[in-house]
Amino acid sequence: MKAIVPFKKEGAKSRLGQFLSKDEREELAENMLKDVLVALFESEIEEVEIISTGAWDGIPKAAQVGGALDSKSNSRLKATVIEDKRGLNEALNEVIAKEKEPLLILMADVPLTTSKSINEIIEHEEDVVIVPGRKGGTNALFLRRPYDFFLSYYGVSFSDHIETVKRRNLSHAVYDSFFISTDIDEVEDLIELLVHCSGFSAEYLRSIGISLHVDKNLKTRARVCR
Amino acid sequence: MKAIVPFKKEGAKSRLGQFLSKDEREELAENMLKDVLVALFESEIEEVEIISTGAWDGIPKAAQVGGALDSKSNSRLKATVIEDKRGLNEALNEVIAKEKEPLLILMADVPLTTSKSINEIIEHEEDVVIVPGRKGGTNALFLRRPYDFFLSYYGVSFSDHIETVKRRNLSHAVYDSFFISTDIDEVEDLIELLVHCSGFSAEYLRSIGISLHVDKNLKTRARVCR
Repeated sequence: MKAIVPFKKEGAKSRLGQFLSKDEREELAENMLKDVLVALFESEIEEVEIISTGAWDGIPKAAQVGGALDSKSNSRLKATVIEDKRGLNEALNEVIAKEKEPLLILMADVPLTTSKSINEIIEHEEDVVIVPGRKGGTNALFLRRPYDFFLSYYGVSFSDHIETVKRRNLSHAVYDSFFISTDIDEVEDLIELLVHCSGFSAEYLRSIGISLHVDKNLKTRARVCR
Repeated sequence: MKAIVPFKKEGAKSRLGQFLSKDEREELAENMLKDVLVALFESEIEEVEIISTGAWDGIPKAAQVGGALDSKSNSRLKATVIEDKRGLNEALNEVIAKEKEPLLILMADVPLTTSKSINEIIEHEEDVVIVPGRKGGTNALFLRRPYDFFLSYYGVSFSDHIETVKRRNLSHAVYDSFFISTDIDEVEDLIELLVHCSGFSAEYLRSIGISLHVDKNLKTRARVCR
């Protein structure tokens, strides 16, 4: 089974700008992608297509990402990178329109994703499995007949996808996962990485001096100590 | 099996203060408690003890809460309310020290909780099941031998509870649920209620004019229209 991971490095994660430099944000984005790839490599997924929707000097480096992963997994997984600078919906809707086989679409900024969850998602028999992200988002989507679906990311995509399911008379399930719901966009999302992640992203954050701090009101924050 | 739900109405949800009046926040808190009780009533849990850690004019009203629920479930569940104005840790640690039977502790502000999740949590064979909340929190905790455990809510309670598990040589599992992780504390958490909840809390929010709004940057917000 194939998974598609849309990825944007250039100017990634701008909302972390008060906290991390542009280079750091881009490096964090690459490390999160690595964590997502590790989870995919350790799952039943056999093929990954990374769709890069911005300039990415790392397209040749994708081999390195693979290299980093090979040491972590006995993978029979094949990964390729495709560049498509259109918006997420345009790029992905073109892909799924042509796709006859079941497909998982997984965001690149959900580094807490586990292989156990990926396997549970793709085992569903429903036509569509929607995995919510926070604030009405859709962080993973499993399409048994991709050509029958239409993607509308941005806005309240969870509700839009549910509507599409109903309008097209498809069966669906909602897969409930805190770890997949946790996309890393804002400074306070870094807390989740530091508490729950043992992968590349948390290691990277610690290497640049980001750590957890509980203040005197017992409020937890991510803190920079450089 | 018994569940304990700590609840505080008085001055509840102060971080929603820029958006909701004190009365509205307290009413929202009661409606969230009702949603949590519905999920418990529809699960395998047989007994619920609500521990009220603040003044609650609703202690006599708990019967009403039960009344609202009776119409929704064929419940054989027994609910009682205990008042204990000490802090959460003090009140709950005293309860679990005396408790010989397996126990679920579930927060009152996680209205998206499903009965399916509750049943899956209490089916675990591990000594302890920890259900993370956002920002390092613990939103549900299942203790097979409550008298063997020690609770430390506040701060990074997830990590504190994992440490306690290890120090006491207990077996444990982490139960991964977006819906249980979603405690309603901040204005943007209301988005989750409006997108995913079909219960009392979302109905209440809509009744006081709170709705979803997607702005021109496709950012989703909860909005007041009165």
